[in-house]
Amino acid sequence: MQLGMIGLGRMGANIVRRLLKEGGHDAVVYDRNAETVKSLSSEGPAGSSDLKDFVAKLKKPRACWVMVPAGPITEAVITELSGLLEPGDTIIDGGNTFWKDDIRRARALKEKGIHYVDVGTSGGIWGVQRGYCLMIGAEKETFDRLEPIFKTLAPGHGDIPRTAGREGAWARSEEGYIHAGPVGSGHYVKMIHNGIEYGLMQAYAEGFDILKNADSPRLPEEERLDINVTEVAEVWRRGSVVTSWLLDLTAAALMEEGDLKSYSGYVDDSGEGRWTVQAAVAQAVPAEVLTSALYTRFRSRQDHTFAEKILSAMRKGFGGHLEPKVPPPDVDK
Amino acid sequence: MQLGMIGLGRMGANIVRRLLKEGGHDAVVYDRNAETVKSLSSEGPAGSSDLKDFVAKLKKPRACWVMVPAGPITEAVITELSGLLEPGDTIIDGGNTFWKDDIRRARALKEKGIHYVDVGTSGGIWGVQRGYCLMIGAEKETFDRLEPIFKTLAPGHGDIPRTAGREGAWARSEEGYIHAGPVGSGHYVKMIHNGIEYGLMQAYAEGFDILKNADSPRLPEEERLDINVTEVAEVWRRGSVVTSWLLDLTAAALMEEGDLKSYSGYVDDSGEGRWTVQAAVAQAVPAEVLTSALYTRFRSRQDHTFAEKILSAMRKGFGGHLEPKVPPPDVDK
Amino acid sequence: MQLGMIGLGRMGANIVRRLLKEGGHDAVVYDRNAETVKSLSSEGPAGSSDLKDFVAKLKKPRACWVMVPAGPITEAVITELSGLLEPGDTIIDGGNTFWKDDIRRARALKEKGIHYVDVGTSGGIWGVQRGYCLMIGAEKETFDRLEPIFKTLAPGHGDIPRTAGREGAWARSEEGYIHAGPVGSGHYVKMIHNGIEYGLMQAYAEGFDILKNADSPRLPEEERLDINVTEVAEVWRRGSVVTSWLLDLTAAALMEEGDLKSYSGYVDDSGEGRWTVQAAVAQAVPAEVLTSALYTRFRSRQDHTFAEKILSAMRKGFGGHLEPKVPPPDVDK
Amino acid sequence: MQLGMIGLGRMGANIVRRLLKEGGHDAVVYDRNAETVKSLSSEGPAGSSDLKDFVAKLKKPRACWVMVPAGPITEAVITELSGLLEPGDTIIDGGNTFWKDDIRRARALKEKGIHYVDVGTSGGIWGVQRGYCLMIGAEKETFDRLEPIFKTLAPGHGDIPRTAGREGAWARSEEGYIHAGPVGSGHYVKMIHNGIEYGLMQAYAEGFDILKNADSPRLPEEERLDINVTEVAEVWRRGSVVTSWLLDLTAAALMEEGDLKSYSGYVDDSGEGRWTVQAAVAQAVPAEVLTSALYTRFRSRQDHTFAEKILSAMRKGFGGHLEPKVPPPDVDK
Repeated sequence: MQLGMIGLGRMGANIVRRLLKEGGHDAVVYDRNAETVKSLSSEGPAGSSDLKDFVAKLKKPRACWVMVPAGPITEAVITELSGLLEPGDTIIDGGNTFWKDDIRRARALKEKGIHYVDVGTSGGIWGVQRGYCLMIGAEKETFDRLEPIFKTLAPGHGDIPRTAGREGAWARSEEGYIHAGPVGSGHYVKMIHNGIEYGLMQAYAEGFDILKNADSPRLPEEERLDINVTEVAEVWRRGSVVTSWLLDLTAAALMEEGDLKSYSGYVDDSGEGRWTVQAAVAQAVPAEVLTSALYTRFRSRQDHTFAEKILSAMRKGFGGHLEPKVPPPDVDK
Repeated sequence: MQLGMIGLGRMGANIVRRLLKEGGHDAVVYDRNAETVKSLSSEGPAGSSDLKDFVAKLKKPRACWVMVPAGPITEAVITELSGLLEPGDTIIDGGNTFWKDDIRRARALKEKGIHYVDVGTSGGIWGVQRGYCLMIGAEKETFDRLEPIFKTLAPGHGDIPRTAGREGAWARSEEGYIHAGPVGSGHYVKMIHNGIEYGLMQAYAEGFDILKNADSPRLPEEERLDINVTEVAEVWRRGSVVTSWLLDLTAAALMEEGDLKSYSGYVDDSGEGRWTVQAAVAQAVPAEVLTSALYTRFRSRQDHTFAEKILSAMRKGFGGHLEPKVPPPDVDK
Repeated sequence: MQLGMIGLGRMGANIVRRLLKEGGHDAVVYDRNAETVKSLSSEGPAGSSDLKDFVAKLKKPRACWVMVPAGPITEAVITELSGLLEPGDTIIDGGNTFWKDDIRRARALKEKGIHYVDVGTSGGIWGVQRGYCLMIGAEKETFDRLEPIFKTLAPGHGDIPRTAGREGAWARSEEGYIHAGPVGSGHYVKMIHNGIEYGLMQAYAEGFDILKNADSPRLPEEERLDINVTEVAEVWRRGSVVTSWLLDLTAAALMEEGDLKSYSGYVDDSGEGRWTVQAAVAQAVPAEVLTSALYTRFRSRQDHTFAEKILSAMRKGFGGHLEPKVPPPDVDK
Repeated sequence: MQLGMIGLGRMGANIVRRLLKEGGHDAVVYDRNAETVKSLSSEGPAGSSDLKDFVAKLKKPRACWVMVPAGPITEAVITELSGLLEPGDTIIDGGNTFWKDDIRRARALKEKGIHYVDVGTSGGIWGVQRGYCLMIGAEKETFDRLEPIFKTLAPGHGDIPRTAGREGAWARSEEGYIHAGPVGSGHYVKMIHNGIEYGLMQAYAEGFDILKNADSPRLPEEERLDINVTEVAEVWRRGSVVTSWLLDLTAAALMEEGDLKSYSGYVDDSGEGRWTVQAAVAQAVPAEVLTSALYTRFRSRQDHTFAEKILSAMRKGFGGHLEPKVPPPDVDK
């Protein structure tokens, strides 16, 4: 079937490529950068010069996938697009939108007879080759109509061992996509996916940090161990309980540079980790690990917090403790 | 080569089986339960009636793998065994021993000319079929002599995609075992492995908890979502960033029973998670996630903590708040 | 000056009493329960039969303090009241309202010429006697007009030792009230106050829990200590670094019942702890302790979490571990 | 009675001063710095030139208070001293010694007939004037004999309001000292005191950090609030629930310098916070807040952790995310 794609960054362009190559689908593409459109259309899809042209080139009922940065840009594109579409058309938001925004938008678009689908997409830069893991929120009819698109984008069951207890025809989840529920559900499940991702990453990160510091000068000399973290990461890929794709990536990074010294240590976060915490708080579900993983990133981006200065000020107040202005060079490195 | 195995529980017996079947090695086995010895020896290895008999049946220099519960039982077996061995022999502790105990023991055994090896073994009940991921602490010569054993037990490189940057002959780590360093290093690395395992598990657990509670009656009705966690676990196995073996196991458990109602929620912990926290504290490395994962297990085993009662007592003190004696039935379930 | 009070629960009634007794002010009171109005008006203030009567009895420009449960009830009362007031009148919300709701309301009321003030009030059931610590959000003119009310309600500088560096006339903060900033600021500061309160409470609670368990059967016999927590709480009130009012309350609670066995361990939370976490996340400020304190309360209200069952399911999956259905009676109590 | 004091730093010297001035006691003092001895002895106590001289000048049975840095220095002094003392004499360790070291030492000294007392001392630099809060571990007879010393050092009941339920004669705890239990108990209780102290400090620190960042440029402009933290700290001293001595100190520090910019943000920790975590882990008591408070200090002393670099390496691996080498100047400050 035909899909329109707005936003031809790495993700948008690769999704189009996969649709054409793996599924024999058809695409109309648009990006505010005309060069980008020209470049991708040389690979097959029809280019378009603006949103009006884009809409005109799509067959009805239209399916328009928006793949631009989440937040105000996505909002603006959807607003403009919705002014050009007709009843029966569908807007698919494939970015990392906040799920409550999906619900709000779907409600507004429904009044115009326009359908809305939120797709949580995991797989990052590897998706074009591995396929994308898709979590989809939509009304049933809309999901059904677009399913051929999702099926092509997903990895398929491949040769991953089947989960015990599953038999017969492959379920959608085994093909790598699910209809998670009504609008909002796709991004909700993707949000939790990313929340978990933060937690998993932090678990590995802390473990490797302790391994790296097993020879810390803080320790009694006879208790210091010099551990090769690159070899540890590799061996854990082989039959251990902590085997995972994130570990594979860690092993590759450590292979390239065992002390990771080219990294600053500044770690960004996108919205999903924060929304996961909000969701936990709203439900009164304790989420210590997912929250700590987020806070660690916050802390990584600061030189020092005001909180730490408050601590030192109190210590001076009750004990006359004066912290060193510049930390001693040989301690806690 | 020949290995002696003491302790024929699931792990010990399976290690012997794998040695015989996959590596053509030879084994002498002992267990305090004579029936167990008899049963396993019917599969090939030589049985023995007591430790003396066990030692007598082994070729010199002897290699004796101890695979009994960590702690006092391992300590007792090693003490008795060391009284029967001769200089040049080796004791291998394959359990989850505290790494400082390894160092202490190795030092004592060295005076008798007996070698000591600590092997961290991951793979659980799946090891017999997948192979065991081995982290080994030993003097170089001892490690070299026993390497054929380790090589057979490890999974081998199999068809797991090779880490970018690795080329040429397969490294030991790629075959699934490493010489982590001197005595103590094997269990140290295994300890951190388990610490990470706790963190990973808790990250998934919290994420699925939030998904499960996405339709909590605490939430405004229009914000409730009914998510099928079984399908979510399955789809995440397919190309998502959170793919892992632990996720595979979760998907299987949820396939069997979507609400896991047959589990009590009581979660045990073994020593490694605790020692990981101790190691972090000793090095002054922050380990929020690994520690929270441990504390969650502590909490799971209590009805209520004294801490919680202190909180209620204060609340009554300053605000006259009276907590319900029995929680209201419809809240926070 | 004159104040109207809506909501004659413990807080509302005591505020009126303090205004009349300590400041010679005048009050008109209303509660939906006519008996309550009657009872309080016998102590001096003018009673009223409904909101219309209440408004009629107040001198212009009217000052109406709303002291009913935060959330929908406060919202409803303010909505009804605002329909009865005239330009120049003021509504004071003295409850624990979410600060963004204050900003929204003030904006709507401003269109009618009605002023809005948010007052964070600390002191609980002790306020009538100690005075109330007040954090006030308001336009400057409104604050100035109402200041006599705030000054009377606040504790005054009393005999609390003056902070080093402060001299000359007493600042408002030293008298126990502040103009925290524009509308929303009062409840914002109160929100953080409560967030801190949760953290402080949890710190004491964990410490006393460890003291209580210093004789845990989990510990080696020679390392068990039997600590009298009642005496510890008392001695810490005397010159220690952890002296505080919360500790005073703890000491009193432990004096009454050393094992606190009449408390269920179920701990409620009100919105401020949650909003504090939201504020931290929005600012990207790490707030581990304030968040953990909140999560502990969430956990205290559940029998078991789904997260814990997920953990057990994984443990069974990789290690064949079966958790006890019913925890062993002698462990982790 | 007479006390010998070894170590005339701020704490040791002030203890002697308080004994002489408040209790009419008698003292012999020693410090490895002869000038220090000379200076203090000019205020009354007898000086001594070395440990031998110190011991010779004390009446039997001797009571020797050791007040030198905890760890190897205390160990060395006690070892030397114990060689000079006679059966019936007592060594008092007033520093922050690890409680298991107390038990070990007491056992060794008992063989020589020497008594051992561990005193946890809170009050910091303010103790000389406020009195010291004392937590004492000792055999009953030893405690009884030395009680006059403790009673003088403690603050006494003063004018702190009596805890409800207490009546009749003042208990020791009300006078500011307790016999916490057998040897080790004093330092155990002090250890938990400090663990709680860390947690309390961190709770205030996080709260003030959020207040300080309430006008963060990360926030939507209409949600920014400019809060004066100095005034907030002051007002909370007046009738709020979070009133405490630590808050008094914070208010004083913020009065001196509202942005605390002269503090580096580097925060040290002494052993007690770490031992508290160890004790919690050994007992299987969850202690999220006390542990987080410790980890925050660990993190404050590092530029970046290896853990953070691992996170960035993974992010690059799966998403191609490149963290800025130098954080953007206008974000997360």
